[in-house]
Amino acid sequence: MGSAERLERWESRSEWVLAGVAVVFLVAYSVQVLANPGRGLTNLLNGVMSLLYLVFVVDYLVRLSLAPHRVRWFFRHLLDLAIVVLPFLRPLRLLRLVVLVKVLHRAGGDAIRGRVAAYTALSAVLLVYVASLAMLETERNAPDSTITSFGNAVWWSITTVTTVGYGDLSPVTATGRVIAVLLMIGGISLIGVITATVASWIVERVAQEDSANRAATAAQIDDLREEIRQLSARVHTREDTRDDAWSPR
Amino acid sequence: MGSAERLERWESRSEWVLAGVAVVFLVAYSVQVLANPGRGLTNLLNGVMSLLYLVFVVDYLVRLSLAPHRVRWFFRHLLDLAIVVLPFLRPLRLLRLVVLVKVLHRAGGDAIRGRVAAYTALSAVLLVYVASLAMLETERNAPDSTITSFGNAVWWSITTVTTVGYGDLSPVTATGRVIAVLLMIGGISLIGVITATVASWIVERVAQEDSANRAATAAQIDDLREEIRQLSARVHTREDTRDDAWSPR
Amino acid sequence: MGSAERLERWESRSEWVLAGVAVVFLVAYSVQVLANPGRGLTNLLNGVMSLLYLVFVVDYLVRLSLAPHRVRWFFRHLLDLAIVVLPFLRPLRLLRLVVLVKVLHRAGGDAIRGRVAAYTALSAVLLVYVASLAMLETERNAPDSTITSFGNAVWWSITTVTTVGYGDLSPVTATGRVIAVLLMIGGISLIGVITATVASWIVERVAQEDSANRAATAAQIDDLREEIRQLSARVHTREDTRDDAWSPR
Amino acid sequence: MGSAERLERWESRSEWVLAGVAVVFLVAYSVQVLANPGRGLTNLLNGVMSLLYLVFVVDYLVRLSLAPHRVRWFFRHLLDLAIVVLPFLRPLRLLRLVVLVKVLHRAGGDAIRGRVAAYTALSAVLLVYVASLAMLETERNAPDSTITSFGNAVWWSITTVTTVGYGDLSPVTATGRVIAVLLMIGGISLIGVITATVASWIVERVAQEDSANRAATAAQIDDLREEIRQLSARVHTREDTRDDAWSPR
Repeated sequence: MGSAERLERWESRSEWVLAGVAVVFLVAYSVQVLANPGRGLTNLLNGVMSLLYLVFVVDYLVRLSLAPHRVRWFFRHLLDLAIVVLPFLRPLRLLRLVVLVKVLHRAGGDAIRGRVAAYTALSAVLLVYVASLAMLETERNAPDSTITSFGNAVWWSITTVTTVGYGDLSPVTATGRVIAVLLMIGGISLIGVITATVASWIVERVAQEDSANRAATAAQIDDLREEIRQLSARVHTREDTRDDAWSPR
Repeated sequence: MGSAERLERWESRSEWVLAGVAVVFLVAYSVQVLANPGRGLTNLLNGVMSLLYLVFVVDYLVRLSLAPHRVRWFFRHLLDLAIVVLPFLRPLRLLRLVVLVKVLHRAGGDAIRGRVAAYTALSAVLLVYVASLAMLETERNAPDSTITSFGNAVWWSITTVTTVGYGDLSPVTATGRVIAVLLMIGGISLIGVITATVASWIVERVAQEDSANRAATAAQIDDLREEIRQLSARVHTREDTRDDAWSPR
Repeated sequence: MGSAERLERWESRSEWVLAGVAVVFLVAYSVQVLANPGRGLTNLLNGVMSLLYLVFVVDYLVRLSLAPHRVRWFFRHLLDLAIVVLPFLRPLRLLRLVVLVKVLHRAGGDAIRGRVAAYTALSAVLLVYVASLAMLETERNAPDSTITSFGNAVWWSITTVTTVGYGDLSPVTATGRVIAVLLMIGGISLIGVITATVASWIVERVAQEDSANRAATAAQIDDLREEIRQLSARVHTREDTRDDAWSPR
Repeated sequence: MGSAERLERWESRSEWVLAGVAVVFLVAYSVQVLANPGRGLTNLLNGVMSLLYLVFVVDYLVRLSLAPHRVRWFFRHLLDLAIVVLPFLRPLRLLRLVVLVKVLHRAGGDAIRGRVAAYTALSAVLLVYVASLAMLETERNAPDSTITSFGNAVWWSITTVTTVGYGDLSPVTATGRVIAVLLMIGGISLIGVITATVASWIVERVAQEDSANRAATAAQIDDLREEIRQLSARVHTREDTRDDAWSPR
């Protein structure tokens, strides 16, 4: 079995495991940020998260070692490297949840508009929730910070992701601003997906109504080809019958 | 008559009744919020609104009982449930007006761009008006609130729905922020619809002008098929005449 | 000559006159707002603007009287009525310049992407300039106003039309907010047109590159039809020659 | 060799030289703004930048002199003139980097979606970096300025380019506001490109799935034509054989 095939098999098998690990990670992180637990539980949660983190590191190394062209794979998967290495900056480690969104996107790979819409909504909720958690952890204890409760953090996340940006709350720490930038990029992409989905729907509805300008469909071409084949078959048959009728003469 | 047909008949009959109920509800709510009427009128309006509210609950229950697969119907109509249950949070009960927009959308179901534009404009006006009413009722008496007049509320709604978001006014209560989030989602969708409508128009204009790259239309394919049919008929006729000419020989 | 034709002829003839009148109006208004002229010049400019305003009123009445179905025309041209009637609110009278944009759009009626882009840019510049003038006149003397110079007004207009909305400046008067709302609607439309133009370009480029998925063009269908016609002509000719060859036998 | 050909040859040869010059210019400008070097180095950097600037002036003049219709070329290349003349306003001279983006766009001229996305990302990073540098140089020493560090400048650039616009930081000088306007226009264009790319992708995916409404492709038309040609050839061959068979009789 070639190296490329083994890499593919590993990725299709580990996909759901990694997604599960990301979910458990998210739950542990949520408890730690939102519940503000005592020292004992905090230590336990930190231990769990470090362990889960190891799973991502192992996955990255296995994939790197299985890749047929390691240098090329390395440069084409810089985002995966970032997910593994960056998390040492604490709130940014939730970047790992990109794995979860990736699974959603792959599951919706042969997507019609309905599925695109569903996964967009899911991604938006996940994005806002994770950004709020990370922002709260980062800004909570910063001097002059305005984002000091989870409610405030969610409110800030949503005004940012929709690009409304009131500015009644805004991050003051460097890490907080990095999170904000990632959220803005996510927001623009989400708006792009929503607009594009609506555009695709309108173009189709207009086409269905406006029969004179409707685009020719593949089905119509297939019908046309069938008629030409029948015509061709008829010409062919006649030729043969004639030739038979001819020869005995 | 099957259960599915009875559900369909109920929905097509109750549609306009529900829309009418929603309009009356909106008028009553507007009077209550904007006119700040005395205790007697307030009680009367509250009574009217509770009665109208019952109509929605009854409609929901009838549809649930008529649905062929009740569990599936329940999960596919969570939004309808939210419209019925959520309104106990006072300003959010205007969510019921979604019914009105739904009627508009259904009336424009076989929509060309013109109708899409008209219903988008109507939805935008309705959305801004309802959000302003709800926001005013919620924030009017909150401490530190900046949205204390209907003019302010409309101004805030429009800056939010267009995603401009100056931040000179912004909600401070939790309910107010929920309304704001719904308005932002509405705003992004509206921008998406506007962009998509324009895109559909430009794509069509470019196609009409650029004859070398114009997409083949269904009408052209039909013309083509007609010519092939005539050719086929001609070949067929000759075959028959020949066979006649042949046989007597 | 029918009433509908006379209306059409009037509109095609008055179009450029009205555009010229709007330009002169804009110049007079600019001088009045920006130069802060003495009382004598102010009176003169007001006189000129009132005269020019009459031209619009006359045009509206002529078109109304020429329309075949006056009631229907009235309801379909409420925007034209607004342009004529609203200007009594002073800064809003610049709405008349919609005429100018209309001419631009009509001139670009058979628009390819290039022309759409050019007219979008022109409309954007005109929109920002006019909004800045109107906003400056309205807010200049309002208490607590932050928009007190033309530079500030332009800066505010651009942050609004792009939906950035810093909120460092924002209108405080009711008229100012109406202007702002019109500007926001203009801004969203402009963003829509820009996105749509780019989308149309990308869709075309992708189609040109990806030959397997390229849409069938009208030109290809025409080629196909030509080949079928030649085939049909050949079959037809053979039939005739045969019939000739047949008969003498 | 015609004048038009010589212009073309000059442009294709000088393209990469100009891009290189722009990169060196950017590095020199970055050092000057970010490192705040001593007087000696500042003078050296200013000298280098003036020299590099000359290259652009020479290129402009050569292209103007080579153009077949100089007046037409002049009016069609006003942006190039602006790049050459405007830079005397100090921070705006980075407009020259438009050359770099132009090269990127030309390199991706036969672009599929992937390449469009890559160049969009690159342009966005370049735009934000250059705008931050220019803004920092302009606002650093202005009274009441809030943009006084490179971190702040980058944060402001990103909130502006995504049209979020919190307003916690905003430029106060005239030059700063011109930079901001250019950045906003860039931001809207970037959002347009992102949306358009996604739209193109969704339209294609929907088409691939929905076989009944899939557009007829050029490949299908080619198949169809092949079948018609074979049919035509068959009819033609029979005609010839018949004619041969006929004559000896």
